[in-house]
Amino acid sequence: MSGDFEQLWAELAPLGRNRTTGGYRRFSWGPADTQVRSWFRSAASARGLEVETDGNGNLWACWGAPGSVEAPRAPADKAAAVVTGSHLDSVPDGGAYDGPLGVVGALAAVDELRRRGLRPRRPLAVAVFVEEEGARFGVPCLGSRLLTGAMTPERAGRLTDADGVSWAQAMERAGLDPERMGPDRELLGRIGAFVELHIEQGRALAHTGDAVGVASAVWPHGRWRLDFSGQADHAGTTRLADRSDPMLPFAEAVRAARRAAEEHGALATVGKVRVSPNGTNAVPSRVRAWLDARAAEEAALHAVVEGVDAAARSSAAEHGVTVTAFLESKSPLVEFDHRLRDRVAARVGGEGGAVPVLATGAGHDAGVLATAVPTAMLFVRNPTGISHAPEESATAADCRAGVAALADVLADLTDAGPAEED
Amino acid sequence: MSGDFEQLWAELAPLGRNRTTGGYRRFSWGPADTQVRSWFRSAASARGLEVETDGNGNLWACWGAPGSVEAPRAPADKAAAVVTGSHLDSVPDGGAYDGPLGVVGALAAVDELRRRGLRPRRPLAVAVFVEEEGARFGVPCLGSRLLTGAMTPERAGRLTDADGVSWAQAMERAGLDPERMGPDRELLGRIGAFVELHIEQGRALAHTGDAVGVASAVWPHGRWRLDFSGQADHAGTTRLADRSDPMLPFAEAVRAARRAAEEHGALATVGKVRVSPNGTNAVPSRVRAWLDARAAEEAALHAVVEGVDAAARSSAAEHGVTVTAFLESKSPLVEFDHRLRDRVAARVGGEGGAVPVLATGAGHDAGVLATAVPTAMLFVRNPTGISHAPEESATAADCRAGVAALADVLADLTDAGPAEED
Repeated sequence: MSGDFEQLWAELAPLGRNRTTGGYRRFSWGPADTQVRSWFRSAASARGLEVETDGNGNLWACWGAPGSVEAPRAPADKAAAVVTGSHLDSVPDGGAYDGPLGVVGALAAVDELRRRGLRPRRPLAVAVFVEEEGARFGVPCLGSRLLTGAMTPERAGRLTDADGVSWAQAMERAGLDPERMGPDRELLGRIGAFVELHIEQGRALAHTGDAVGVASAVWPHGRWRLDFSGQADHAGTTRLADRSDPMLPFAEAVRAARRAAEEHGALATVGKVRVSPNGTNAVPSRVRAWLDARAAEEAALHAVVEGVDAAARSSAAEHGVTVTAFLESKSPLVEFDHRLRDRVAARVGGEGGAVPVLATGAGHDAGVLATAVPTAMLFVRNPTGISHAPEESATAADCRAGVAALADVLADLTDAGPAEED
Repeated sequence: MSGDFEQLWAELAPLGRNRTTGGYRRFSWGPADTQVRSWFRSAASARGLEVETDGNGNLWACWGAPGSVEAPRAPADKAAAVVTGSHLDSVPDGGAYDGPLGVVGALAAVDELRRRGLRPRRPLAVAVFVEEEGARFGVPCLGSRLLTGAMTPERAGRLTDADGVSWAQAMERAGLDPERMGPDRELLGRIGAFVELHIEQGRALAHTGDAVGVASAVWPHGRWRLDFSGQADHAGTTRLADRSDPMLPFAEAVRAARRAAEEHGALATVGKVRVSPNGTNAVPSRVRAWLDARAAEEAALHAVVEGVDAAARSSAAEHGVTVTAFLESKSPLVEFDHRLRDRVAARVGGEGGAVPVLATGAGHDAGVLATAVPTAMLFVRNPTGISHAPEESATAADCRAGVAALADVLADLTDAGPAEED
């Protein structure tokens, strides 16, 4: 197995990697995305998996003839499919593991089942969801949101990237038909369970000393855009009293985000900022900033956002600046299916063994799919906890442990038996 | 005269203007810059002025055969040239007047002298200095700094724009030879006086009720780049205690800049910021910010910069972030030549009249040239004081008053007499 994982990893690693930063820039529908999607098609085909693209641009690679999962079946049906997978897009200068580990791991788990001489008795598919990070169009998990209906095709189609290209235009340029976008109840109805393998994006497993963990829940989280509008002026001649400088209330909002997060045991981050006109000797006319906030409970999340908003408004008023807040996306608390979680944990922990069960502040396609199908997640230890950065890492041994655990879970869920019995 | 000014203004106005913002994006050596330089050559040629480009890319349009200003002469020489002019580049989304008023005004003043039937008895030239705003390569007044030797050609050649294109490469692509860069003592030695007409970038003249004023001094000012380096991390999973978020000390530096400026009666602005990787769900790895500071006295300027630096360092240490400050450019206090200033003021104020004499916080090519030749500046009233923004404005009547005042000054300094006497 390790050979398969490592070969797949080595094929994927150079695609979309920036030589200067060492980070990945795989943005949906862009050139690097085209490369990694094409790599996935080849790797899946080489394994005898049949690859299809759904109406929202997500990829599905099916073990066995696609016909075996095409007939609509009730989720409880023994023939309902088991799906695993993740995403291949990245944040700007992201790491190698967030997303790809779950795709490469899924293909390697298929190889591992074969090596064990097993064949699934339920359909098994590997999925790749598009625009999970929201790095290009601003809304994370867009592919899974469209699939489940959490995002309407009308709203998605109008989302634009930094150059003003819309999601619909970008899809079309990639050869897809935006008219096909939208929820796909039939496809979802054929899925009995979804399991996502993912690198941990914190240090919980590093602390417990385990290579693999199981997810319990995804924290409620959201993104808010704050637009501070003032008046561009000459930096060398405009008296302080005459200024409407939006950089000043923006700075107060950054401070307030940290303060409120500390106060409510939450997370708040201002990681993206755009300044206009962004000239050294010009008081800005506008500062546009994005707030990412997450908390274990809805009430804490609400309190953080309220705190930032109040500080921004108060400072904006003081400086003659207007501030407008837009909710860009929000995800409620997701508790993963308890029965599936317990079954996965029992399988990973082994006889008498125990496996850490963790909540996470990160959004995932699994969190979106959990609203439609029984869903579980496996985490692989991240020694530094660093993620969304070139330094993100996992040891080869832990990746192998993750693949083995995923293969165990898939064998169980698909009721796999000896291949020669077929 | 007004017809000439208005026609020239109408020709120049559409070039390099962004339709969405209404602001100008004329960046040195870029497509809009090529257009405005070409426009200047045509307008000057149409007036019988001979246009030359110096080794640093500045344009010179001479009234009379260039030979008449070619022979080296002592500055005190009656035959030393009188030069007027300004710049055509802009800050991002800048206004129409900052720079162009002094170039269009210079050409219109030439027309006005002719209309009055006058011919200069000293050589008269109109100059256009390159990269005055420093919007593309970061150092303002680069053309005049290179000419006077305030910037070495080696350092200038290595300056890069946001895309990593060097000044030397950009010059070369525009058809100039970077080997010719550097101070030009011979050219400076032929100049007896430089006078720059410029829009006021504050509201002093609006308060006094005068259309035109004269400059006394340029405040000491400078630009500092602050690099805050932390650790990119996932915004949804990295505990606050585990973060090294450079956005936090950056926010403190913004606050400190305002506080220190208030305390020392100075100006301080953070108008330009670049965040890496600039993703909504990533703690930034780096925030790069630029501080523009100006004060009437060197001591106050120093105190402001020290105050920002101390606040940035203290907050950076608290958040596990490193901060490095780079001085990008600094200009000492410039007091304009007193004799020339008084002569210009007497001419503009008229018999028994008085003209406001103002210090300015804005850097200008005149401030750089003042270190090499007697230099003066005329300001035209700005009703709102807004500059470096699309809303920058002056009334047509005030522009005409500025051109008339410049023509008066040029007639005086060039010892102009009736054209038929020649």
